[in-house]
Parts: sequence; structure tokens; C-alpha cells
Amino acid sequence: MPEVVFAKGKTPEQVAAIADKLAVNALNVLVTRADAECARAVSELSPEWKHYPFSGVLTLWRDHTVRGKGKIAIVSAGTSDIPVAEEAQITAQVMGNEVDVVFDIGVAGIHRLMHNRERLTEARVVVVCAGMEGALPSVVGGLVSCPVIAVPTSIGYGASFHGLAALLGMLNSCASNVTVVNIDNGFGAGYVASLINRV
Amino acid sequence: MPEVVFAKGKTPEQVAAIADKLAVNALNVLVTRADAECARAVSELSPEWKHYPFSGVLTLWRDHTVRGKGKIAIVSAGTSDIPVAEEAQITAQVMGNEVDVVFDIGVAGIHRLMHNRERLTEARVVVVCAGMEGALPSVVGGLVSCPVIAVPTSIGYGASFHGLAALLGMLNSCASNVTVVNIDNGFGAGYVASLINRV
Amino acid sequence: MPEVVFAKGKTPEQVAAIADKLAVNALNVLVTRADAECARAVSELSPEWKHYPFSGVLTLWRDHTVRGKGKIAIVSAGTSDIPVAEEAQITAQVMGNEVDVVFDIGVAGIHRLMHNRERLTEARVVVVCAGMEGALPSVVGGLVSCPVIAVPTSIGYGASFHGLAALLGMLNSCASNVTVVNIDNGFGAGYVASLINRV
Amino acid sequence: MPEVVFAKGKTPEQVAAIADKLAVNALNVLVTRADAECARAVSELSPEWKHYPFSGVLTLWRDHTVRGKGKIAIVSAGTSDIPVAEEAQITAQVMGNEVDVVFDIGVAGIHRLMHNRERLTEARVVVVCAGMEGALPSVVGGLVSCPVIAVPTSIGYGASFHGLAALLGMLNSCASNVTVVNIDNGFGAGYVASLINRV
Amino acid sequence: MPEVVFAKGKTPEQVAAIADKLAVNALNVLVTRADAECARAVSELSPEWKHYPFSGVLTLWRDHTVRGKGKIAIVSAGTSDIPVAEEAQITAQVMGNEVDVVFDIGVAGIHRLMHNRERLTEARVVVVCAGMEGALPSVVGGLVSCPVIAVPTSIGYGASFHGLAALLGMLNSCASNVTVVNIDNGFGAGYVASLINRV
Amino acid sequence: MPEVVFAKGKTPEQVAAIADKLAVNALNVLVTRADAECARAVSELSPEWKHYPFSGVLTLWRDHTVRGKGKIAIVSAGTSDIPVAEEAQITAQVMGNEVDVVFDIGVAGIHRLMHNRERLTEARVVVVCAGMEGALPSVVGGLVSCPVIAVPTSIGYGASFHGLAALLGMLNSCASNVTVVNIDNGFGAGYVASLINRV
Amino acid sequence: MPEVVFAKGKTPEQVAAIADKLAVNALNVLVTRADAECARAVSELSPEWKHYPFSGVLTLWRDHTVRGKGKIAIVSAGTSDIPVAEEAQITAQVMGNEVDVVFDIGVAGIHRLMHNRERLTEARVVVVCAGMEGALPSVVGGLVSCPVIAVPTSIGYGASFHGLAALLGMLNSCASNVTVVNIDNGFGAGYVASLINRV
Amino acid sequence: MPEVVFAKGKTPEQVAAIADKLAVNALNVLVTRADAECARAVSELSPEWKHYPFSGVLTLWRDHTVRGKGKIAIVSAGTSDIPVAEEAQITAQVMGNEVDVVFDIGVAGIHRLMHNRERLTEARVVVVCAGMEGALPSVVGGLVSCPVIAVPTSIGYGASFHGLAALLGMLNSCASNVTVVNIDNGFGAGYVASLINRV
Repeated sequence: MPEVVFAKGKTPEQVAAIADKLAVNALNVLVTRADAECARAVSELSPEWKHYPFSGVLTLWRDHTVRGKGKIAIVSAGTSDIPVAEEAQITAQVMGNEVDVVFDIGVAGIHRLMHNRERLTEARVVVVCAGMEGALPSVVGGLVSCPVIAVPTSIGYGASFHGLAALLGMLNSCASNVTVVNIDNGFGAGYVASLINRV
Repeated sequence: MPEVVFAKGKTPEQVAAIADKLAVNALNVLVTRADAECARAVSELSPEWKHYPFSGVLTLWRDHTVRGKGKIAIVSAGTSDIPVAEEAQITAQVMGNEVDVVFDIGVAGIHRLMHNRERLTEARVVVVCAGMEGALPSVVGGLVSCPVIAVPTSIGYGASFHGLAALLGMLNSCASNVTVVNIDNGFGAGYVASLINRV
Repeated sequence: MPEVVFAKGKTPEQVAAIADKLAVNALNVLVTRADAECARAVSELSPEWKHYPFSGVLTLWRDHTVRGKGKIAIVSAGTSDIPVAEEAQITAQVMGNEVDVVFDIGVAGIHRLMHNRERLTEARVVVVCAGMEGALPSVVGGLVSCPVIAVPTSIGYGASFHGLAALLGMLNSCASNVTVVNIDNGFGAGYVASLINRV
Repeated sequence: MPEVVFAKGKTPEQVAAIADKLAVNALNVLVTRADAECARAVSELSPEWKHYPFSGVLTLWRDHTVRGKGKIAIVSAGTSDIPVAEEAQITAQVMGNEVDVVFDIGVAGIHRLMHNRERLTEARVVVVCAGMEGALPSVVGGLVSCPVIAVPTSIGYGASFHGLAALLGMLNSCASNVTVVNIDNGFGAGYVASLINRV
Repeated sequence: MPEVVFAKGKTPEQVAAIADKLAVNALNVLVTRADAECARAVSELSPEWKHYPFSGVLTLWRDHTVRGKGKIAIVSAGTSDIPVAEEAQITAQVMGNEVDVVFDIGVAGIHRLMHNRERLTEARVVVVCAGMEGALPSVVGGLVSCPVIAVPTSIGYGASFHGLAALLGMLNSCASNVTVVNIDNGFGAGYVASLINRV
Repeated sequence: MPEVVFAKGKTPEQVAAIADKLAVNALNVLVTRADAECARAVSELSPEWKHYPFSGVLTLWRDHTVRGKGKIAIVSAGTSDIPVAEEAQITAQVMGNEVDVVFDIGVAGIHRLMHNRERLTEARVVVVCAGMEGALPSVVGGLVSCPVIAVPTSIGYGASFHGLAALLGMLNSCASNVTVVNIDNGFGAGYVASLINRV
Repeated sequence: MPEVVFAKGKTPEQVAAIADKLAVNALNVLVTRADAECARAVSELSPEWKHYPFSGVLTLWRDHTVRGKGKIAIVSAGTSDIPVAEEAQITAQVMGNEVDVVFDIGVAGIHRLMHNRERLTEARVVVVCAGMEGALPSVVGGLVSCPVIAVPTSIGYGASFHGLAALLGMLNSCASNVTVVNIDNGFGAGYVASLINRV
Repeated sequence: MPEVVFAKGKTPEQVAAIADKLAVNALNVLVTRADAECARAVSELSPEWKHYPFSGVLTLWRDHTVRGKGKIAIVSAGTSDIPVAEEAQITAQVMGNEVDVVFDIGVAGIHRLMHNRERLTEARVVVVCAGMEGALPSVVGGLVSCPVIAVPTSIGYGASFHGLAALLGMLNSCASNVTVVNIDNGFGAGYVASLINRV
């Protein structure tokens, strides 16, 4: 298991200090939700740190052993959902999984989804990130027979209420193989997907 | 236009009195949301009245002129959504439309939807009734190019909050051709679909 | 149909790249919800782009063919609702419709509405944008017999809860010809109005 | 001022005991929100008690002195709102006011409202009861220049959320002369209208 | 009646243009919710304009005729509620009323309220502004027999939800003489108080 | 400490079995939220059980040792709040406290509260039960210098939302000595009051 | 995979008809959320059907093959949560899993949980059912390293808002291995746990 | 009792003026929720003022008399909760209490909590600050027999809704010795803890 630091709500100095301390004993360390200033503070600790500015993730990835038994598919609905999907992707990769990324697949263009159907059915677990109406996990859930982890994103406006509409939609999914994590919680989805893939 | 009586919140006597009075001058009269007792009171007025116990609709349908220019498709997601869909169907029929009914089509079984795709694309307007996550209008909206009227239903439990989840999902639809009516408002959807089909 | 880019949540570079690529094959392209910086990036692509700073819409409008069969009326309640109404207006115009704009008509000054009544009844579909209590679509809906598309706006304060009050009001409209789109979704209203006007 | 007993949440015995005790010294006593059993218990106390089963009000009205300086108009939007309007009406009458009742006036049929306009402008204060979208107080507020007291009712379904939609609409009224009381609080509206009419 | 401009949501230029136009014919003009920039634009129009930076009100007050028959008392709970109370106060004054201001009276220090009790009972109508738990109108309502207009303010934090707690508290007041306006709507309270005082 | 059984959500048989088993070793046992049928099942176990039908509490009270160091005052706002207050009262008594009960004290009748002020200041901790606007704890909190435990009750209608208005009001109390328990949780308030009184 | 019928919202006749039809080809059939009348209708179909009245589940279980690779632990917080836990348990068993049931383990009695810790760590996936504050999944999540599926239950009162408090708590769990299903959705949790245990 | 100034919503000048005036007669003065600018204004008044930038508290602490009879334990769940915990800590210290601080104890790492168990049981009252799912007070409440004051913090994201999830969790605590204060209200918790410790 990598060590993980949730950066939001901590000062850059606090994050850098914790990250540096963890780097002494841990093979792999993950920092999530780091803003630009915080990323700079961590990056300066050592050239081993790699920064993904889109999702605000930083990694110290020394042990690349593959631990997952199959493949994890990560699907996202729109361009704006990619940062959350990337957080899930990096988490799953650093935890030793092969990840297949299928981005920009919305329910209103069901054909793109159908064309990628085979890739999805090859995965042992699927993570689906979607904002607005959050309908994608239900459709994906009907296409695959493995567990689906749904991540509502805060993408949308008006009656999306910062991800609430997507969250409620996913919790009420008519597909039986769907479980849900918090809004924008790409890390949690990648983490649980990794646990399932290791079982 | 038929005359319409919304029965809920009125006594059986009130509804029967209004319906009887309207029947004098109107060719077509529609009573919606009538419970068993209210339906009995109206049915006793005249054998012309027909009762649909599933949806609680009563019709006095004297003028069967077809006024719609094309076909209205009415789609529902699950067995429990049928009462709402039936309310939309009867409204549209009494308003002079040919209606094509496609029931029991859920997003988690996307194949059934794909098999009925052609029927949907032949309609000039589509009404979609769905509870739980309310994802069906988005998928249907992506398959057809005509207006889609989404009806959230109160079907579901827990975090469906009596149709709120479906309502929010539909309002945030990523398909541009979707508009929404109130939870369980099959009548309103059938009514507006009729107006669009007459334009 | 024009190609459409929803700019919010994308970087100016992303929007400009998508817009530029769509401009190769599409006759008409619409960018919505662009802030100043994003508008600049798109405007620099070609002098064909026109920017409407009030609503944040950008258009590349090469094909001016009229496709609508009648007129679309667009009504807004107050000065602050005009940006949303303008988004609806430009969408409808670029989609080939004659649009009649009636701004600054509130329910508390019912006379201004009554004076414009004839213009409204001449339309084949009416779009109504209103914030605060969102009562205008019900009143307009009672005056016309065509479909009314209601757009709640986020204008208001306190218990308007960023457009929620207007949204709920419109969903509960006592006028049977009203359907609703998301808060501030002028584009969606203009889009569906165009579909109805083409039927 | 009459003595007032709010019956809901009390047993019939408790209500009857309180009412009986108040009747000793008070000229006028009002019981509100009494169900059938409670009404029976109070009615049996003395033939002086009069029961209004529609609204659940009971009155002991000995002093009919007119105290109000002008007329109070009470307007309701639909048949189902009448019980709330009746509660306001009886309260105002027992408090010594001349009341002008204008029922069944909805915003979707603005003509009926316009025809009754003069009656409204003759009042010194207007009470408006409406459920669903709760738009009527704004329209009435624009037609009269006196204070308007808006009473949201719990009439509606789905996204009316038991009167919440109407309540929010009234709080966000664009008419400056509108204040609001609790959902279904006809008594409160009639009470304050009486105070205003006495000033 | 003064002419009124609600500045929020309009540009300084728009507000100044409207204000200048109204100043031609109106004796008294009120601008509410003006930020610093907007206030500057209006103030530059003419030295007749007076600016109240605390509440963001601007007045053009040419006709000082007293029209109210009695006194309006305006009470506020805490220092932070004063801007809202000031908006009510200026509105009432410009509308021709004598106003008695009683600030910084909280329910947790009931003695300060009791000491000012006589001043309150001398008023013909009382406006009460309070944030947080919004309990003050109930207590004041119990001390006076005239109408009380309650203004919830957005003052508070956490579970005050920007004034929602105070709003709900006031709507559920156990005092029968209380009506409520929107959160922070000092203008509306001052306006209706003036109407009541003129009756 | 007494043993406690929360009856709601358990069958009468389950409650009776648990109560009977606890009665073997415990000196004092408390059953809360028992409906009529459940109360009968417990009462039949032994004549030692005493039933308080108003609040649904049952007690087996063998050890009457006084353990509290001072007095606990329990205040309730209206008649309908008494069941909750009684639950707090019995809990505190069975836990060995002298309890001073002050019922039917509302904020709109501040004089009754002032007359009982001395009794309140003699308590070492005060429990205040109130529904509707829930303002009483703030006023009481300002009168005493000991801890105040506020219990919102579900009494009210409309915008009270089953106790939510009172709950939010109490959480936002401007009195610093107030803490809050769940809606209708008289037991919890009595329990913590007892702990404080034992310290 | 068993065939599954969700009985709620369907008539006993509908459920019995569907169940009977599925029984022709399927080895295992599960009916969930059946009330007494519905259970009778299904039980009469054949003696093969077994009814679990506590949770409202009915099973037709012909194929007892074990398909899971490890053990599924199912934990519930209180007596009232057992029906939901039983639904999860039967689902997992019929889907071919060995299930270890640990009931009546609340966070306020952390010792009972610690005593059962070893049993939990032996599972390959843990289902945790809890109402009220829904804290148990976080504590269990910290004790085991496998995936935890959290099921909020509607058990509680007042501010539990029918399971909303537990749902929000679980979505915000500080344990990284927790995903969530809908309120009372024991079936969904048992289903996904089975999928994970088969991987 | 110290004098207390709540700085938020007041200007630095207002806060400094109030603080300076209170400092004349009061031995101890506390300023809470001061931002940097406000802290500077107060600090410049006199070198007696001490500033705690983390929590925004300022103290003028002249009288260090110990008034509490026992120890107050203050527990916080995560690093980000420390500012709220510090506010509680300083409040309790200035009010004359010995405070034992146990920071960074989360429910997902129950061992750290168990190791500190003895320190907690030595306290006469415990304050617990936690965000996200807010589960810590329930677990602590089960370990100690004294009163526990739960402080929900606004720490979290997505479905934490700025502390609402933690607040609801704490109100529904299954531990009987827990009462709750407003989100982020460290001051209130420290204040009531002091009152309890003085009893």
C-alpha cells in the first residue's frame, strides 16, 4: 500500500513535511489535491517526485511491482471529468495495477460507449466518473458483469448542485453492480478498485 | 382541447359535479389522479365514462379526430413507471394523437433500447418516464433528434427522495433536446407532446 | 444543426482547439459560457467569430438558411435575466429561426405583458426566462396555446437559492403547456424551441 | 382580540377543556385545525359553537362589533386552497372585519383576475392563498397598492414538496408589497390582516 | 411612492442610467444594494444623491412630506444586522415616515429588550432584523400588539446556512402578528411597513 | 446508571424480552418510545413496571438514591412539547436527580418566563424543549449562567419541517451556554443533564 | 447469477407471475421487498419457495454451488438494522458465498467490535449496515484491509432524515476502502460483495 | 467569565474599539474569528494581547485563576480540524481550566484512540472536534462516562456539504452522553465545557 497525503486544508509546509517524512520508509507515496504552491513545495523535496497538474496529484513511485490480477478500466463522461478520472488512474497505477483509460464517453452518444464495450468487459473492475446527470455508471453497469465503482463529479451547473444530482443518480442506479464514493473522490475509487483487483 | 379535471385534493362529489358540468359542452373530458371512490362517482354519471384504474384516469372521449401530424412515442423505464406513462398515453390519445408505447426499457439493459431505436426515431416527439436515477431521457435524447419530454417518477426508495433524484438527473441531462415536467406529471408531458405534434 | 462547445470547465486553449477543429467541417458553430479570456482565444482564430459578451456566446455563423416554420418568442422578466435570454435567442437564430424578443416583462407589472400579448400568441413556441419567484411562465402559459419552455435563472438573493425557487415554481406551474430546463440553460431552451419550430 | 386555540397536537379533551375555560371570560373564541373528533368534543360544550368542517375552524362569536376601518380581500388560487382561505376569512370576520372573498383565481387564467381587479383595489389589505408555484401574490401585488399577505398552501405534488415551492416563490416575489406567513397558515394571515385594517 | 432601483446584477452604467432617467420625473428615488463602484457612478450624477455606504443605499430625497400616521420602530439583533436594518430605515424615511431605531437588542440579553419595551409599544408597526436563530421577532411580537415584519439576515455561520435558519425560525413564529420577507430584504420590510403606516 | 431500551423499531416481544432480562441484574430500567402495544407487553412482565402513556416511557425504578448535586430544571414551550419534556424529566429522575418542571412557557409570552426566572437560576443545568421556531433556549440561556441543553421538538407544521426549523434555530443560538440534542430526544437531554449534575 | 425481482411497487399478482415465469429456466430466484400479501402469493406457487419475513426476501434456491473464493462478513450496528443485513446475507448466500454474520455491534460499544476483529479480518469483503450516524463502516474500514461496502439504513429519528445522515456519513468516510450503496439497499451490497468475492 | 468579541462580520476598527473598551474593566477578554487585518488592529492596542493565528483567536489574559474542578480533554480527528480545536482549547484555558489536548485521532485508526483512552477517562468533560463523517464523538462517547460536547467542523468536500454531514452524524449519535454545537463552533464547546467543569 502506498502512503497517502490529502493536501487540501493543510499548508504547503505541512504537506511537504509529512511527504518528506513518509518518503523515508515508504516505497510509494501519493499526495492528492495539491494546488500549485503545494505542488512546488513537494516537488522541491526531491527529483523523485512527479507532479500531475491536471488532477493535483504528486507521486513518489519507487516500487512498480504489478500486484493486480487483472485490468482496471477507468471511464469518464466528459472532458471536464478527466481530472477526477486521472486521480483514480494514478492511484490505481501506483498501487500496482494495469489501467485501461476510456475517456470522453457520454450517455447521449451511446455509440462511442458501445464501440468500447469489449474493452470494458475485459476489466475485472470498472471505475466510472461522471458529472451532470451521472447516468453513465448505470449504462456501463448493464454492459459488464464485474463490480462498477461510480464517482460523481462536481461538473455541471444550476440544478447539478455541485455534484449532488450525479451522486443521487448513482446511488439510485438500476444496475445491481454499482457502488458509489464521494463527489470528486477519484482517489477512493482507484483505491477500492485496486483492493478488488488484488483479491 | 379536452377539458381536464385534476381530481386529487377534491372530494368525489366535487369532481363528479365538475365533470358532469363539463360534459355538457365539451366533446372530450379527462379526469386525472382519481382514486377508487372518486372513479366510482364519475363512472356513475354516464356509461360514456371509461376508467383506467392503473393510472387513475377517466375519459369521456366523444371526438376521435386525429389532429397530430406525426406519432408520439411514450417510453417507460420499469413496470412501476407504467401508471405515469399511461397517464401520458391517454392524454395524448384523447388529444388526437397516434401513440407508440414502448414500456419496460431500462438503461441497465441498453440492448432492449437499441432494438427499439427505429420506432423511437420515427416519432415526432418522445415522452420518457423514469424513476430511480432517471437516466433514460439522456440516452433516448442521444438516439433521436426530435424533442424529448422527460417525466421523473416517484418510483424508487432511500436516496431517490420520492423522485427528486430522477428530477435532478433529467434537469442536468447532457442531451440538448430534453425538457422536463414535474414528478409523476404524465398528463403534462402528454399535453405538451400533443401541442408539439400539432404545430 | 450547429456544432456546440460548452466552454465552462475547459481551458481557453481546449475550447479554441475544439472550436477550430469543428470550424473545418461545420457550417455553424456555437460556443457557450465563454469568459473574457476564453472569448479572446476563440476570437483570435478567425474574424468569422462573433462574440456576445453579455451572454458569453461566440458564433461562427455561415449558413443563414431559415429552417423554422414559424416564429419563436423569447420573453425575459428582468434586466438581469437578459444574458440567459440572449443565449436562447442566439441559439435559436443560428439554428435558423426568426426570433421575437420581448424583454423586461415582470409579473408584478402585468400590463406590460398584456400589451405584448398579441406578439406572444403569434409565436409557435415561447421561451420564458425568469429568476426570483419564476412566475412568468405560468402567466404566459395561460395566454398562449403553444408550448412554453421555461428557463429559471439564478437571479435573486436569499431564499432564491441561486435559482432553486424559480426552478421549483416552474416545475409546479398550473399552466399545462409548460416544460422546464436547467437553471440558466438558455441554450437548451433555444435548442428545443428550434426543434419544435422545425417539426 | 379573540382567544385562540390551535387544536393540532392536542387531544380532543385538552382542546375542549381549554375552549370551555376561555369561553367564560372571552367574548370571542376561535379553535383552529380541529379534526372531526375534536370538533365534536367542542361542539358538545354549548350550542354557541359553530363548526366549519372544511377548514376545521370552530367559533364562539358573541361580539360582532366591526373594528376594521376598511375591507379585507381574501383571494385563493384553486379549489383545493379554499380550506386555508376559509381559515383566514373566519379569523378576519371574528376579529371584526368586513371580508370580500374572491376564490378560484389562478395565474394561468389571468382574465378572471383582471375582471376582479376593482374589488381587490378597494381593499385595505389583501390575503392571497396559493399552492403549486405560488405565483398569485406577485400578480396581485402588482395590481394593488396596499399590503399583500401571501399564504403558501401545501397543495400540489412532486416538486411542490408540500408547499415549499410556493413558499420560496412568495418569499422571492418581485412585488414590493408582499410579506409571507407559514405554509397553510390562514389564521396568521387573517390575524395580521385584521391588525393592519385596524391601524 | 419613491422610484426604486435594485442595483445588484446590473452594471454601474446601467444603474446610473436608470437612476438618472427616473430623477427627471420622480421626487424621490432610492437605489439599493449598490457596491462601491456603482455608488460612485450614481453619486457623480448630481450632488443631490446621498450615499449610505453601510447598507449600499443611495437616495435622491426631494419630497420630505410626512405621510405615515404613526411611528415605525426598527429593531436589530446584532451589530452585523445593522446594514439590513439601515436599508429598512432609509426606505421607511424616504417614504415619509418617522422611524424609531433600536439597534443591538438580542434575545440572549432580554433585559435590553425589556428596557426598550415602551418605545416598541408606541409604534404602529415594528420591523425586526435578526440573523443566527432569528428568535427576536417572536419575542417582540409577544410584547406589542401591532403588526411585526420579520427580516431574516444572512448573518451567522455553519448551520445558519446563509440565513435559512433565521428564515425558518421566523416563519414558524409562535407570535400571531408576525409576517416575513426574504433574507436580507430590508427594503421590502421598510416598504410594507410604510404601506401599513399609511393605511 | 439505569439500563435503557429504545423501543421504536423493535417488536413488543423483542422489547419485553430485553426489558425482562435487564430487570434481573439492573436496579433501574428505562424503556423509551414504547407504543400502546409495546407498553402492554412490558407492563405484563411485573407490577414493578410503571407506564407514562403521554411520553411512552416505562420505568422499573428500584433504587431511588439521589445522586445529583443540585437541581435540574426542565422547561417546555407549549402543551404539545410536554411528551418530550416528560421523557427528559423521567430520565433525570430515575438517574437520581431532583427535577423542577416549568411547562408551557413560550417566547411570545415573555412574562411567564420572567416570573419563573428565579427557579431557573437555582438549577445547576436546564433542559429546554421547544418546537416551531425553537427560540426558547436562547432566551433561557441569557437568563441563567449554567449549561442549557436544548431539545428541538417535531411540533409545528409547514416550514417547521418536522423539527428542522427548531433544530437549526437552537444550533445557531446567540447564547454561549447552549448545546443541542436530536429532534424529540428528551431522553438524551435528561441523560446528559444528569451527568452534568453529578460532576 | 440468480434472477431477481424487486417486489415493491408491483402488485402481488405481478410479482407472482414474474417469479413463476423465472422459475422455469433459472436455478435460483430471489424476490426482495415483499410484504406479507405478496409473500403469500409467491409462497403458494410452489413449496420450493422459502420466505424470510424479517427482511421480506423470498428464495427459490436450487443450485447451492459455492462460487465465492473466500468469506463475506456482514456486520450490523443495531437490532433494527438486522432486516437490511439479512437481505444482504441471503443475497450473498444464494449467490454462492460463505457468509459470516456479526450482528449488534455499535460504535458506542467499541469493545464488542474489537472482540470480533479477527473474524472481520478473515473476510475477503465486508458489508456493514448501520443507521443513525452511520459511523460503523469507518471504524470497520480502519480494522480490515479488504473492500468494505457500507449500507446506510433508514433506522433513526429526527435529524436522521430517514437514513440521510447515515448516507452522508458513509460517503464522507475517512477510511479509504469504503464504498456506499443506497439507503436500505442490502440486496445491492450482497450482490456486489458476491462479485468481488468471485473475482 | 471573560468578555468575548465575535470578530466576523465586524470591521477591524469596530472589533478593536469594542476590545479596547472591554479591556478597561474586564480581567480577561477573548476575540474569536479574527482575520489577519483584524488581528493586527487588536494587537496594536497593547502588548498584553496575544494572537493565535491558526484559529484566529486573540486573548487578553490577566487573571489565570484556575476555576475548573477537573480536567477538560479536547480531541480532534485530523490536522485540518485543529483550528477549531484550538479555539475550544484557548476558550477553556482562559476560563480557568486545565486542558488536555489529544489531536489527530481518527476513527479509521481506532488504535491511536484506544492508546489515549485513559487520558480521556480522566477528564470531567470531553470536547470532540471532527469533520467529514463526524463519527469520533460516538466512539469517544462510548469510552467515557462523562458529558461529551461534539463540534462538527466544515472540513471535508463533496457530500460533506461544509460540515452538514458531520453535524447530522453527531446529532444522531448512538452514544447517550453526546450533545452538539454549531459547525466550527469551538468557542461554544470550550465555553460549555468550562461551565460543566465548574459545576
